[in-house]
Amino acid sequence: MAYDLWYWPTIQGRGEFVRLPLEAAGIEYNDCARVHGADALVKRLNAQSGRTAFAPPWLEDDELIIAQTHNILAYLGDKHHLAPSDREDRLWIHQLMLTIADLVAEVHAVHHPVGTSDYYEDQKPEAVRAAAQFRAERMPKFLNHFEHATDAHDGPWLIDHRWTYADLALFQIVEGLRYMFPKRMATLERDLPRLVAMRDLVADLPGIRAYLASDRRLPFNQDGIFRHYPELDAA
Amino acid sequence: MAYDLWYWPTIQGRGEFVRLPLEAAGIEYNDCARVHGADALVKRLNAQSGRTAFAPPWLEDDELIIAQTHNILAYLGDKHHLAPSDREDRLWIHQLMLTIADLVAEVHAVHHPVGTSDYYEDQKPEAVRAAAQFRAERMPKFLNHFEHATDAHDGPWLIDHRWTYADLALFQIVEGLRYMFPKRMATLERDLPRLVAMRDLVADLPGIRAYLASDRRLPFNQDGIFRHYPELDAA
Repeated sequence: MAYDLWYWPTIQGRGEFVRLPLEAAGIEYNDCARVHGADALVKRLNAQSGRTAFAPPWLEDDELIIAQTHNILAYLGDKHHLAPSDREDRLWIHQLMLTIADLVAEVHAVHHPVGTSDYYEDQKPEAVRAAAQFRAERMPKFLNHFEHATDAHDGPWLIDHRWTYADLALFQIVEGLRYMFPKRMATLERDLPRLVAMRDLVADLPGIRAYLASDRRLPFNQDGIFRHYPELDAA
Repeated sequence: MAYDLWYWPTIQGRGEFVRLPLEAAGIEYNDCARVHGADALVKRLNAQSGRTAFAPPWLEDDELIIAQTHNILAYLGDKHHLAPSDREDRLWIHQLMLTIADLVAEVHAVHHPVGTSDYYEDQKPEAVRAAAQFRAERMPKFLNHFEHATDAHDGPWLIDHRWTYADLALFQIVEGLRYMFPKRMATLERDLPRLVAMRDLVADLPGIRAYLASDRRLPFNQDGIFRHYPELDAA
């Protein structure tokens, strides 16, 4: 039976970290809100009782509801071998995914530093300030950590001789940061050869290639987590 | 053999979510940086190679290094039965812990909205603005979610008839928010009877009672995640 994935229908956002491994592995899923709309998502979220999701994305596997991106990935990873089975390898992949989630939260905070539910336009000077520090300190710190992580093992992947959902997540990080900070990324990528090589390998996986060419892949836009505001970028 | 926990020695911070279950379960650990200092922590972090931690806290179990609070807790949970063994229960506890981690990150962003490495004093007007929205929207949203979570099961705990590390984490959330926003919490707690009752139960666990009375429990202060700036609080 196909999984039901519920996430905002007009952005890649956190849902993309779930869509990518489903697509790469050819696992059947319904991207429900893209069919039924955002109102249906809100209605369904509000109708949950008992063990409810705090926010999208969540995955429905028959009666079971699993929320929080990391949790969904760990669940799918175990079930479909999208993560290593060795305990130490799995801890490492989880650790990287949690660090990726920290980065994603910081990226969002760059363009929404003072009010999550306010418009960007109402916090632009603060965003400019937040972006300067993010570009100078946080971006290189995170990206160098991931470059180093891709170097902790001989092959091109983070673990073993095949991709896990963490490799796909790093692809998404590179894509997102290129969209949001094209100038800064051009500078930083000079020192990230392995991470960029892995990004290219992911883009070339058959399932991902097909997905990126399809209309299932939403384009980056100014409503998602990665947004391109030229005033926030600099080399 | 005792675990080696490495976390900043002068704050509760994220390390506290690890200290609490270790103390409650009477598991031996060395709070290494409290003995050897912050410089020793930085030195040890920089000396890591291969699968390195991005930031404290990390736990050393013999040769194995596990970083990211959520990951450390999942590891200890499996090993010492501090989490349920049933798959669906465990997914639920993980989901709650990840939501708690999201809240912790948002709490930190309230007093550091535009620059993680800048002083609070250099971003006070922005913090006042961030705090207003946090108090009005985010605090009730998170706390009502946790109140509801404590109600998703008959007993006083989140799961089953005993505490897990997620119950202890919610204790820490209530304590931290009471310290940071005493006025706001006094208002909100009127509608959080179950969460407050669970907080009281945790405080009364023998291991926690002993810990809180010891000098191993650092006091809340103005360097941690939860900070009391009166200008950020209001009923």
